[in-house]
Amino acid sequence: MSRTFTAVRQVRRPEGVPVPEDFAVVTGTAPDLRAGQVLVQNLYLSVDPYMRGLMRREGWARGFGLEGRSLGRVVESRDPALPEGTTVFHHHGWATHAVLTGDEVRTVVAPPGVPLPAYLGVLGGTGLTAFVGLTRIARLQPGEDLFVSAAAGGVGGSVGQIARLLGAGRIIGSAGTPAKVRYLIDVLGFDAAFDYHDASVTEQLAAAAPDGIDVCFENVGGDHLEAALAALRTRGRVAWCGAIAEYNNPEDPPAAPRNLAEIMRKDLRVEGFGVRDHLDARADLEALVIPHIQAGRIRVDQTVVDGFDRIVDAFLGLLRGENTGKMLVRVAD
Amino acid sequence: MSRTFTAVRQVRRPEGVPVPEDFAVVTGTAPDLRAGQVLVQNLYLSVDPYMRGLMRREGWARGFGLEGRSLGRVVESRDPALPEGTTVFHHHGWATHAVLTGDEVRTVVAPPGVPLPAYLGVLGGTGLTAFVGLTRIARLQPGEDLFVSAAAGGVGGSVGQIARLLGAGRIIGSAGTPAKVRYLIDVLGFDAAFDYHDASVTEQLAAAAPDGIDVCFENVGGDHLEAALAALRTRGRVAWCGAIAEYNNPEDPPAAPRNLAEIMRKDLRVEGFGVRDHLDARADLEALVIPHIQAGRIRVDQTVVDGFDRIVDAFLGLLRGENTGKMLVRVAD
Repeated sequence: MSRTFTAVRQVRRPEGVPVPEDFAVVTGTAPDLRAGQVLVQNLYLSVDPYMRGLMRREGWARGFGLEGRSLGRVVESRDPALPEGTTVFHHHGWATHAVLTGDEVRTVVAPPGVPLPAYLGVLGGTGLTAFVGLTRIARLQPGEDLFVSAAAGGVGGSVGQIARLLGAGRIIGSAGTPAKVRYLIDVLGFDAAFDYHDASVTEQLAAAAPDGIDVCFENVGGDHLEAALAALRTRGRVAWCGAIAEYNNPEDPPAAPRNLAEIMRKDLRVEGFGVRDHLDARADLEALVIPHIQAGRIRVDQTVVDGFDRIVDAFLGLLRGENTGKMLVRVAD
Repeated sequence: MSRTFTAVRQVRRPEGVPVPEDFAVVTGTAPDLRAGQVLVQNLYLSVDPYMRGLMRREGWARGFGLEGRSLGRVVESRDPALPEGTTVFHHHGWATHAVLTGDEVRTVVAPPGVPLPAYLGVLGGTGLTAFVGLTRIARLQPGEDLFVSAAAGGVGGSVGQIARLLGAGRIIGSAGTPAKVRYLIDVLGFDAAFDYHDASVTEQLAAAAPDGIDVCFENVGGDHLEAALAALRTRGRVAWCGAIAEYNNPEDPPAAPRNLAEIMRKDLRVEGFGVRDHLDARADLEALVIPHIQAGRIRVDQTVVDGFDRIVDAFLGLLRGENTGKMLVRVAD
């Protein structure tokens, strides 16, 4: 078995939109394992918008490569609890292999009818973000109407599908291409969707939800948040998960909502959250979603980029919105 | 007993900052009471920033005059439960008298050592707003650090004093004159205070709270909110009560915070609220505050304008920030 690995490192801080030159490919040979360690061959790597934020931090490099949610297979083991062949989830992505200890991995056993990559999507951090935002932050009630921005992305698509399982009323999404709008309506069953390039988000959301909304799951910020504040009914909630509109330019954010005082006037609640504080919700997510995946009522949509050497392309494509559903890199089968 | 009353009516919608010509004084004679009615001679009337917002609505006139929290004395009664001499709280302000039924009034019996006007201040809607914002919305915990904008006003002064009773850590306030800043520190015991005219609110709040804050009680909006978002620690809360900075010009609000995505980045919660949804908290407020008023540890600060004929001046002065503490009009003793 080859002990040669390939990894991608961040070699400088991106200025604005990241470019390939911000990254470098390195190769090496995995060290001999110490007791308690395993060598994991990665199968699928997740690239996510939040990584753009991490790239501003110092000292981001960790282990072999850069942080990222990953699924892999144990190919060599000095931990009896993790024999060769075990499938594991871990956070040491951006590499073909990782040397890990038991406390850095979680064993994954996909039930029948559940594809393994779902554990990086609707059953992974992506789906957990959607589930926590809807249930613990927005506290969506049956019958309540929902707006999701960036709805065709990994988180957005999970939000729409999980909201339906939770009994949401009308589900409305925004996306960035006509094809994604069609995907939201025809494939994911959204009640309404629009392309945010077509006209102001405020106008389009008002047209799609003339009676208003109760909850906004916010992945974008800027004009999307302004539209949501205008459309929200009294005591509406915004679960604020992402602001992809400003990840690349935090010092020059998009126009801030001018109608912010709607929060006060309509007794709204706008709450940011991170899934890291809610990992205990995973069991509830799995109990809700797995039967629906097995029954074909939840789609595990993903855009898969094949080959580890394309991980930087996948990440940059994600930032350009080239994915529909969760963006993954397939390293090996 | 005279049955002649004087009232002030709104005669047009104010454009921008209200002017005296937006109002008219009317006089009349109270009608004979029907069974179940009482004639109330008003003693104290409250003028509050929220009234500016109401003045944009159609059909604001109600009863004799305009809505407003008031304390009065029953001077004629056809309700056995409300004999002459009873002191009552009601919402039919902006007049010297009101004809009311039992379901429109609440009997007020001030305990020894508690001045009656406190029931329009720290024991009235003003204090209840402060109490609810701190306990139910921000959920202030002992030791947590607090920033209050417009801290020398009625609500702000109650927030600072009630927060101290609740065990807050550092209490920091903003105000609009050097005299008010001194009042906050010397009289109300704030730990730090600044005049928002002196430099940017963000800079001054950062200097006053170099280690950040946990809670912001927001009465102003605009640059004050921006400063709070910058200073708040992870999982900080904003209880958003007022936006006096934009009451006069809702179509041209002040610069919106450019750092709004801090809500997402720091898992903040920004929540608007109205005291009308929390009237059941009154008993808890009274239980907490009354003993401290009686012991002299809570100040019932107010700016009293004498004479009903000066109510419009009092209201316009309030909007200009001329009051320290609760702004009241004394109609009679």
